[in-house]
Amino acid sequence: MRDAYREQLDAVTGRLVGMIRKAGEQMHLATRALLDADLEQAEKVVGGDAPINRDQLEIDELTIELMATQGPVASELRMVTAALRTTADIERMGDLAVHIAKIARMRYPDHAVPAELRETFAAMGKTAEEMAQKAGEVLRTHDLTSAAELSRDDNEMDRLHRSLFLVLLDDAWDRGVEPAVDIALLGRYYERFADHAVEIAGHVRYLVTGEIQSA
Amino acid sequence: MRDAYREQLDAVTGRLVGMIRKAGEQMHLATRALLDADLEQAEKVVGGDAPINRDQLEIDELTIELMATQGPVASELRMVTAALRTTADIERMGDLAVHIAKIARMRYPDHAVPAELRETFAAMGKTAEEMAQKAGEVLRTHDLTSAAELSRDDNEMDRLHRSLFLVLLDDAWDRGVEPAVDIALLGRYYERFADHAVEIAGHVRYLVTGEIQSA
Repeated sequence: MRDAYREQLDAVTGRLVGMIRKAGEQMHLATRALLDADLEQAEKVVGGDAPINRDQLEIDELTIELMATQGPVASELRMVTAALRTTADIERMGDLAVHIAKIARMRYPDHAVPAELRETFAAMGKTAEEMAQKAGEVLRTHDLTSAAELSRDDNEMDRLHRSLFLVLLDDAWDRGVEPAVDIALLGRYYERFADHAVEIAGHVRYLVTGEIQSA
Repeated sequence: MRDAYREQLDAVTGRLVGMIRKAGEQMHLATRALLDADLEQAEKVVGGDAPINRDQLEIDELTIELMATQGPVASELRMVTAALRTTADIERMGDLAVHIAKIARMRYPDHAVPAELRETFAAMGKTAEEMAQKAGEVLRTHDLTSAAELSRDDNEMDRLHRSLFLVLLDDAWDRGVEPAVDIALLGRYYERFADHAVEIAGHVRYLVTGEIQSA
């Protein structure tokens, strides 16, 4: 009985790790679509959201089933809570990658990101992708050291995010309102993606320690 | 035993209704702070977020406790899932009201919203507030008629949101980049607030019917 339970638990963990890998890949493609003004990549990201949404439904079901067939003791209840929260966060990460791809698609064949901000967005994309990877590691290993690393990465993301506004609001900005609005929204999407990765680490912390961190 | 369970369940419902009422009030105050460039109201909203975050912790704990002391049958598992998802949504609604208040505070004593867009933001604020109220009704009554109404309200919110961009990107826009960026972000905050209200109705639908709607 307990062995079957352990197996089911591992299955949920494995699915969560697979789900966040997809979100990280979506972010990778979305950033490429954005920086290369690549319509095909953008469409690929838009089409790639459905499997992530399906993952959420399936993993949630698996989690609830697992609890229904097992006696609910405190640590398992925590697992259910953490798993349900995690799928919700990853699902949003997928949506945010789609939002980025849709801006790339909307401006095609133009570039949504002007040359002077390409480097910043490349760094935001790289940080976001790495954070998804690290959150996946935290989910897999329950190692809270990587959870602390995620907070540092998030600070870097916030710094990059703020640096966008310095460019947008500088007197030298001469590209007008439309790209400024795109960039403000894009910055927000990357920043929120990173927030969700941090939140996932928080769910694992709760799972391990039983402590919920206030938002 | 079952009576005690029913009581605990009602307690969770009552707390959820109270929590979303707070989020609706925060949205009301945030919109006033924004439209009146009222620093005091803005500060009040920023300070008013902590009770909502506390609600989430307490309600989640209550929900998990309830499940731990009761045998988990399918309908109760659904209740747990729905309650945990609902507190997460309301918590985000509170954050979004704070984001709005912070833009009002940042631009004080100026108005973040120029005169020609005040009416649109007043309508977005009103719609957002009403949607929080309706979501509260849905939580209280489990009446899915109001859930359908929320989807219509959300369409209205999307329409208002899109209308902002028509103004921002019109050749006649002469207020420059900074207010445009503020408005793009503000629009996003109102729109997301509305999305969360719709999602809460979806959780209740799941609770009542057992069907999860794909995002």
